[in-house]
Amino acid sequence: MRSIVSFYFCYLLCLCLGIACVVVVSIWNSQWRGGFAWDGSALQFNWHPVLMVTGLVVLYGNGAVLYRVPLTWGQNKLPWKLLHAGVMLLALLCSIIGLCAVFDFHNANNTPNLYSLHSWIGICTTALFTTQWVMGLAGFLLPCSPMSFRKLLKPAHVWMGGCILILSIVSCISGINEKLFFALKGTTNGTEPYGNLPPEALVANSLGVLIVAFGLVVLKILSNQKWQRSEPTSEDLGYSPLLQDNS
Amino acid sequence: MRSIVSFYFCYLLCLCLGIACVVVVSIWNSQWRGGFAWDGSALQFNWHPVLMVTGLVVLYGNGAVLYRVPLTWGQNKLPWKLLHAGVMLLALLCSIIGLCAVFDFHNANNTPNLYSLHSWIGICTTALFTTQWVMGLAGFLLPCSPMSFRKLLKPAHVWMGGCILILSIVSCISGINEKLFFALKGTTNGTEPYGNLPPEALVANSLGVLIVAFGLVVLKILSNQKWQRSEPTSEDLGYSPLLQDNS
Repeated sequence: MRSIVSFYFCYLLCLCLGIACVVVVSIWNSQWRGGFAWDGSALQFNWHPVLMVTGLVVLYGNGAVLYRVPLTWGQNKLPWKLLHAGVMLLALLCSIIGLCAVFDFHNANNTPNLYSLHSWIGICTTALFTTQWVMGLAGFLLPCSPMSFRKLLKPAHVWMGGCILILSIVSCISGINEKLFFALKGTTNGTEPYGNLPPEALVANSLGVLIVAFGLVVLKILSNQKWQRSEPTSEDLGYSPLLQDNS
Repeated sequence: MRSIVSFYFCYLLCLCLGIACVVVVSIWNSQWRGGFAWDGSALQFNWHPVLMVTGLVVLYGNGAVLYRVPLTWGQNKLPWKLLHAGVMLLALLCSIIGLCAVFDFHNANNTPNLYSLHSWIGICTTALFTTQWVMGLAGFLLPCSPMSFRKLLKPAHVWMGGCILILSIVSCISGINEKLFFALKGTTNGTEPYGNLPPEALVANSLGVLIVAFGLVVLKILSNQKWQRSEPTSEDLGYSPLLQDNS
């Protein structure tokens, strides 16, 4: 009982921090960065932080902890499995559109792509996430997936899930830090310099702190053994993952 | 047996990646950033990345996985506990001297301190690490520490240990990314711009990739239940942590 109460406390914290991340990244880019467009301008770039934080961090983190919600344990796993896959697909689509926004912006302004460490880590994260989603679909949703493959895949899927979240956090923090140095250059571009910590810097730095806090709460939920859904033994497992929804 | 072989494979990987991180960060700062000094110049700043990567990532990560080495399991825990505390103290000292290097450099050049997101996350990481070390000393090494405190502290100590490593990785990646944008400005400071990916950028970006790989291998070792030292039951535990070294 105490374990369930502390789970729901963590889960509530995770939901609140997730909402706060989406709100703060949207306010930052709409109020201080001039809003949004899809025309190759800096306003197109603004979709990048909003979509990456919303997709790769908040939706991804919420999709990851779905199976830990005790409410779902006594029930048929299939609807939750489809919801998990659906939320992750939405997260993946946000991330891909978020990447398109920055590639388009760079190409329109003759800026090279994929040179910074931020971009290297970010592109690896999205590539790993895409692989993870496709492997998850193949292993846990396609009816033709053999049991031996699912048994092999599951620990790797769980482990890789945590790694992708850590990489997402690393990508977001390095990206926000980089953006603030570009945007708040002082007299060079007529802004108050980052070093003076103007309101925009405080808001975006706080966004970074919220992202880190959200990520650590999600990893806490994922790592707690007591909060894991108890799975049936291998004898109970049927062959077809989609029809017999135990994996 | 298979579990022990795979542990030693991961441990070897962890050692090799750790050595590679220290070698690459040293080469980057000695060959491309002009070497080291303690005179308030940019050469003093160069101690910052070297000491943070060596202390907060490599020594810290190696100190964290010490108890997982199967070689140590059948033995008296006390020497390993002292080694763990010693390695962590060395890691902490490196981090603190690494912070002094950057504060001194900033002060000598009238640059503000603690404004960037990188610095916010970095200072929180070192503060948490200091708290963790002091709490660890108080709980697990001081003979007067009550058993109830140790039982309460242990899961928090293990969990916080992983969080600090994640925060260290986030700090290092955002810091390397920031440094490369400062250092490789193109015509502004007579360098080949970061966007052209000159050799220095390739080396420092690769350092970032090595740090992430090292961190994930350490977290893999820490999270594997099979590789955890089996602890005696609470009945076997003595009162004094320093003399009866079971905690």
